[in-house]
Amino acid sequence: MERIITISREFGSGGRELGRRLADKLSYAYYDREIIEEIAKRTSLSERYVQSIIDGHNSFSFPIHIGHSFYLPSSPLSEQATRIFEEQRTIVEELTRKAPCVIVGRCADYLLRETKPFSIFVYADIESKIIRCRKRAPVNEKLTDRELEKKIKRIDKKRAKYYEFYTGRSWGQKLNFDLCINTSRLDLDVLATALSRLF
Amino acid sequence: MERIITISREFGSGGRELGRRLADKLSYAYYDREIIEEIAKRTSLSERYVQSIIDGHNSFSFPIHIGHSFYLPSSPLSEQATRIFEEQRTIVEELTRKAPCVIVGRCADYLLRETKPFSIFVYADIESKIIRCRKRAPVNEKLTDRELEKKIKRIDKKRAKYYEFYTGRSWGQKLNFDLCINTSRLDLDVLATALSRLF
Repeated sequence: MERIITISREFGSGGRELGRRLADKLSYAYYDREIIEEIAKRTSLSERYVQSIIDGHNSFSFPIHIGHSFYLPSSPLSEQATRIFEEQRTIVEELTRKAPCVIVGRCADYLLRETKPFSIFVYADIESKIIRCRKRAPVNEKLTDRELEKKIKRIDKKRAKYYEFYTGRSWGQKLNFDLCINTSRLDLDVLATALSRLF
Repeated sequence: MERIITISREFGSGGRELGRRLADKLSYAYYDREIIEEIAKRTSLSERYVQSIIDGHNSFSFPIHIGHSFYLPSSPLSEQATRIFEEQRTIVEELTRKAPCVIVGRCADYLLRETKPFSIFVYADIESKIIRCRKRAPVNEKLTDRELEKKIKRIDKKRAKYYEFYTGRSWGQKLNFDLCINTSRLDLDVLATALSRLF
């Protein structure tokens, strides 16, 4: 079985925690935030700025792919976003050459598609995403359930837009993944133990 | 974890084999064809006829659900299809009261939704479905790859139509399942072993 696992995930679905637990059980490297840090280093941009670009500013209005050719955006912001994406590609490829690993986010399922990683999509119903977000929220967060639901949906919409912009693929399409996991009713540790048996 | 597992599957994806292996590993009962036999017994229709109705004759042109009320079809064929579906519901509910089990097909994920079974959707890319179908095809089957692809897609379209007609849900929607499994690159026995750890 493949020694590279990519995890794409909806906000609040527990995909990151699942990735970390799975990496632990398999003694694989785990990459998530580290990739942002490395992009920041290589581009001399702040981590916060890189993150804000990746989280989706409003220029992702049409795909960067048109057919098989690349559309080269001309605004400075778009150029920076493209440069960040290209650094992301280079770093993700470098990391996978080092050792078996779990990569969370970063369009890694798409960036590594030629080498066919084992790719997982993690999702959940809105009720369990709200519960999970509440548990991890800063103590001073005062959002109502309705506000939190809106926030979750807004973040997922941005993730989808970012993914679709750079990959030309629809986000979360079953056929692009080996497994799609609904964490609404599953214990993440039990799940990680079961999944580790696949590798 | 739930002791009832439902498996919905695309044609040629290996969902039935996965279900049987999983039932074996868990020492759960396994139901598939047995449900058709039981419907036939209770309705005094032939198994073949019951199967043909379930496989989707062309009357599934609009959903039996309209909002929250039932539409009662008036043609004898539709009445028979409805009766078969209702028997299916009764039998599936009876079976799950007996003992832990795996049920393949039969819209069981929908029929049992109140009791929240662990529900799995099994799918695969068309290339691996063709390979799987070839392995199980009768020796005298002489379909070209293109013809086989058409056949697979036609059967899946009928399954989707049947499911949507009786449930009012879209077939294979991620959120209706706990797990969606792409068998294109996975060994079914390894997969069944891993899954059995969830129960």
